[in-house]
Amino acid sequence: MAQKPSIPKGTRDFSPIEVAKRNYIFSTIKSNFEKFGFQPIETPSFENSETLMGKYGEEGDRLIFKILNSGDYLAKTNESYLTNKDSLKLTAQISEKALRYDLTVPFARYVVQHQNEIEFPFKRYQIQPVWRADRPQKGRFREFYQCDADVVGSNSLWQEVELVQLYDSVFSELGLKGVTIKINNRKILSGIAEVIGASDKLIDFTVALDKLDKIGEDGVKKEMLEKGISEEAIAKVQPLFNFTGTISEKIEKLATLLSASQEGMKGVEELQFICDNVMEIGLQTANLDLDVTLARGLNYYTGAIFEVAAPAGVAMGSIGGGGRYDDLTGIFGLKNMSGVGISFGLDRIALVIEELKLFPETVTATSKAMFLNFGNEEAKYAMKAISKLRQHGVKVEMYPDAAKIGKQFQHADKRGIPFAILVGEEEMKNHEFAIKNLATGNQEKVSLDVLLEQLK
Amino acid sequence: MAQKPSIPKGTRDFSPIEVAKRNYIFSTIKSNFEKFGFQPIETPSFENSETLMGKYGEEGDRLIFKILNSGDYLAKTNESYLTNKDSLKLTAQISEKALRYDLTVPFARYVVQHQNEIEFPFKRYQIQPVWRADRPQKGRFREFYQCDADVVGSNSLWQEVELVQLYDSVFSELGLKGVTIKINNRKILSGIAEVIGASDKLIDFTVALDKLDKIGEDGVKKEMLEKGISEEAIAKVQPLFNFTGTISEKIEKLATLLSASQEGMKGVEELQFICDNVMEIGLQTANLDLDVTLARGLNYYTGAIFEVAAPAGVAMGSIGGGGRYDDLTGIFGLKNMSGVGISFGLDRIALVIEELKLFPETVTATSKAMFLNFGNEEAKYAMKAISKLRQHGVKVEMYPDAAKIGKQFQHADKRGIPFAILVGEEEMKNHEFAIKNLATGNQEKVSLDVLLEQLK
Repeated sequence: MAQKPSIPKGTRDFSPIEVAKRNYIFSTIKSNFEKFGFQPIETPSFENSETLMGKYGEEGDRLIFKILNSGDYLAKTNESYLTNKDSLKLTAQISEKALRYDLTVPFARYVVQHQNEIEFPFKRYQIQPVWRADRPQKGRFREFYQCDADVVGSNSLWQEVELVQLYDSVFSELGLKGVTIKINNRKILSGIAEVIGASDKLIDFTVALDKLDKIGEDGVKKEMLEKGISEEAIAKVQPLFNFTGTISEKIEKLATLLSASQEGMKGVEELQFICDNVMEIGLQTANLDLDVTLARGLNYYTGAIFEVAAPAGVAMGSIGGGGRYDDLTGIFGLKNMSGVGISFGLDRIALVIEELKLFPETVTATSKAMFLNFGNEEAKYAMKAISKLRQHGVKVEMYPDAAKIGKQFQHADKRGIPFAILVGEEEMKNHEFAIKNLATGNQEKVSLDVLLEQLK
Repeated sequence: MAQKPSIPKGTRDFSPIEVAKRNYIFSTIKSNFEKFGFQPIETPSFENSETLMGKYGEEGDRLIFKILNSGDYLAKTNESYLTNKDSLKLTAQISEKALRYDLTVPFARYVVQHQNEIEFPFKRYQIQPVWRADRPQKGRFREFYQCDADVVGSNSLWQEVELVQLYDSVFSELGLKGVTIKINNRKILSGIAEVIGASDKLIDFTVALDKLDKIGEDGVKKEMLEKGISEEAIAKVQPLFNFTGTISEKIEKLATLLSASQEGMKGVEELQFICDNVMEIGLQTANLDLDVTLARGLNYYTGAIFEVAAPAGVAMGSIGGGGRYDDLTGIFGLKNMSGVGISFGLDRIALVIEELKLFPETVTATSKAMFLNFGNEEAKYAMKAISKLRQHGVKVEMYPDAAKIGKQFQHADKRGIPFAILVGEEEMKNHEFAIKNLATGNQEKVSLDVLLEQLK
């Protein structure tokens, strides 16, 4: 009869300590979002299918989880789809809703739907789970949280400046010193392609260039050649294969390289504004770097592109990313709404903090003290004290049964509860409480007021 | 081209102020859960279908949202189900996963799956959304949060005592004074049915009795007769139709009425222990009442049954409920695990707090101050100050564009931001900031340190 319990692949249960650690990261991100003036919104877990489908490319459509219509969902379906077992065509007839794939498209939908209630520019943050029917692998899940902050309705480059500071502020507060915030600009990439006369091959070019770290200069050049980019064109961008120096030096090189491209020079100008101001205002612990191979989100970003790398020495992909997209809401009919935003990769950040042992000791899901249970009379006395302690905010509990004392101590120990409180006949008579430090074994008798002071 | 954006019926978008209000309730509940020694867990949004199906009755099965398998989901389906358009039978072949319907079954699954890692008794809380394909109506949604606290692995009635205190603590802290925590016991209900000789009609009996408030004594009796409960049997429970007095008096009446029923007397004994201790330890603002018509969750509760009613004068159904179930985990193969828990109805609590205007003024999603933008030089100066203010935890922002000043003031006003900060040429020269109280119109010039003090 009994089922062996399990959960779907790619999903996770989180134990109390795991929840506590994740909440520590969430609340750090959240408090920084709010310090920077972002306001929270939440959208439904599932959207109408037409809101999501077609927004993430063919591959994305495939990875969206679809929800089966309720009731007799086959009643009005096309017979030929059924007899031909045409899964793809049937889907639209038996499924009207789909689980959120990211937070950006629901945000765009939200902005358009509520445009008359929103005061623009609108700085919103959103921390909610998303779902993808991806093949699960290490660090990649089918359910995971996204933490996004976006501004919509202003072209000001001060947003980009602030978003870099926001990254710095969050990672500094998490104790994750030395992350590198990489910045690039879509217009730089377009400019490069334009200069080399391969505008139509921009995606091929940037995808190849993005692999510089992985397959090296020769590998990238080989791939570019295979994709039909000429040797001559590649020669023109030779400086990009050894693109070092300070940000100012790099920007200078780009200004030379792209002098013939109007769009490229616009990108240079934007980068310069952002980088100059970031450097002048100063960062707490993060490094800023201009990375011309950075080409993430190429299909939708139109200006700045961001990506954050974990501190040197930690083998981990990017722990955050973002950029500017000039037409965030056009797909839902609202034109000329520029957006810019960043995202934090919670799961990877948690892994990095764990690896570097940066979780504070105060991150725990455990009570401060446990009262032992010596029977109903003692328990009643204890409960009155517990009630008062809790009203003062102390996390405290009582062992529910009058079990053997050894078993009760063991419970407190296994739970990582630091103090045990003992109340027997004598303590009740003297209005006292014996508090035992379970780490040191020290025990003393104190009044309720002193107990409260010690546990607060 | 453009789609008119909308969301699925029964779901909701939450605006910044709505999120802030909900988070205020969530965090009050959460901090009380932790004060009472409960630890957080989280489970996946979707479970394997076999984990959920068959656990909530036929109606429940129908209301569970099923997720369509990915890829060519029709490939291996039974042809006859397709040609017969047999939606019910096909479902099991094209859907392996389903959205969580409540938090109790996933919790039972979690306990069994992780039994070797859990230190029992296990006090867990869980605050996550659930989904039901119910017909949406006022106050009933297809996606809503549940806030559950349960203890598993102990029969101690002290848990019930503490759960009543937990309700009192949460509602007192929310300023919701005068809620009524109704308590009953499944064994009392069984005992009553036993005494009147209608054990096989227990559900009919309690469903009818539960309607006493709505259809009156005559209506209930009529329904009981229609369900085949004899006049003689009904006469035996006549005291229940006018069941008033203090809790002690009510318990005394029950002890007389149920003296012949062993199970009923066990229920009386349990009620007495819980109520006596709750009253002796004391409640802050809530009332405790013994309500013998309370029969919620009859199918699974085996001991105490709880329900919380909003303060008198507020027309609202129950805002919380719970009870004890002796065999929480048996369905997943782990026997003898008694559980007891309570739940908070977030949406209704929010409505009540809104109606009574009990949300504190500090519940806001807005920045404390907005710096006006007079151009890039001034903005840079402002950003340095903003950076410092944020490092001290102040929620502050800058208007991103050097727009007309009237427009900027209007933005701060519409957003409900209390202070505007002005930095022009003169302020820069004197290292000062003009801070304007947007409610009073008062304006003064201060140093950065004083500004920090005022905004902190």
